[in-house]
Amino acid sequence: MKSYRKELWFHIPTRRGFINITPEVESAIRESGIKEGMVLVNAMHITASVFINDDESGLHNDYDKWLEELAPHEPVGQYRHNDTGEDNADAHMKRQIMGREVVVAVTDGQLDFGPWEQIFYGEFDGRRRKRVLVKIIGE
Amino acid sequence: MKSYRKELWFHIPTRRGFINITPEVESAIRESGIKEGMVLVNAMHITASVFINDDESGLHNDYDKWLEELAPHEPVGQYRHNDTGEDNADAHMKRQIMGREVVVAVTDGQLDFGPWEQIFYGEFDGRRRKRVLVKIIGE
Amino acid sequence: MKSYRKELWFHIPTRRGFINITPEVESAIRESGIKEGMVLVNAMHITASVFINDDESGLHNDYDKWLEELAPHEPVGQYRHNDTGEDNADAHMKRQIMGREVVVAVTDGQLDFGPWEQIFYGEFDGRRRKRVLVKIIGE
Repeated sequence: MKSYRKELWFHIPTRRGFINITPEVESAIRESGIKEGMVLVNAMHITASVFINDDESGLHNDYDKWLEELAPHEPVGQYRHNDTGEDNADAHMKRQIMGREVVVAVTDGQLDFGPWEQIFYGEFDGRRRKRVLVKIIGE
Repeated sequence: MKSYRKELWFHIPTRRGFINITPEVESAIRESGIKEGMVLVNAMHITASVFINDDESGLHNDYDKWLEELAPHEPVGQYRHNDTGEDNADAHMKRQIMGREVVVAVTDGQLDFGPWEQIFYGEFDGRRRKRVLVKIIGE
Repeated sequence: MKSYRKELWFHIPTRRGFINITPEVESAIRESGIKEGMVLVNAMHITASVFINDDESGLHNDYDKWLEELAPHEPVGQYRHNDTGEDNADAHMKRQIMGREVVVAVTDGQLDFGPWEQIFYGEFDGRRRKRVLVKIIGE
């Protein structure tokens, strides 16, 4: 069994945002030389997500609005986590809806994807550098 | 390390529905000959889910009603994704709540499950053929 | 490829609660002798979660309140699942929001974590003994 590890760094200048990171994950798979196995892609921060969905700006707009309805940022005083001096309790909730990680099959050296699957980094407390871990195991 | 890949195809005649796919995943594990490892089961479409829960029709009814409350289908014009000509923005949200994939331990050639765990395909934009990927790695 | 399996047992005396299980998962990794690979940690029950987030009591309080808003326990008669004699339909929903499982990279014999990542068992229908499965594969 072979394994390969790579960190991807992102800096989103706004509080919230989505970036398509599929090309970076594909690069890591090529670098690994692994042809058959699984790749784990996870946010290393607890106010961010990695998820798979559509690369369509209208949908990302809908996600942002919907997550704000389910877990609003304001008023920040509604959350006990923010009593610690933080203002990002909502980001910890949004991340649970969208998920921490994805596991994707690697087949014939490629992401084994359906026609519209793309991997996104979802940021809910940005304006600083944050990391995603890519770990690939297989042969 | 061995690996095995199989696609499962489904056609749900309604917009939404749940199917127990545990027997199909068990068959794939037997076909793989893998005794110890992990199995990834994921929707290959971004308006569908694979999840693990109870095979109880009342609960599935509750899930359907609850997901409609959290991300209603109507009015379709409330979602910017639907400006593209689609009417399935809600399905992209329901799928995030229920999840894209499950990873299950394979132990002694079996799904290593607790007493009530069953694997479901959750469809949120059906009435067409769609796929689930099963990828097994191990020995 | 090596694999290792361990069950962790918990008894939460209240209906709902969160426990940091990171030390138990770290012990399992040490016992496995696996240096590079992946660890799967999943609830074996369908009214409980395993998730990764912050070990901060204010946040756990926020999660509990938020999950009750999204999927209230009362009135129990609002759920068809509870017609079976159960009163835990809400727990099956809360578990979908928080997730069944996490997959974490194992690197150099350790959980490959960002600075604040910790693994939690989330109980939504406690007051009885329940299990978490740890499965590690790698080399």
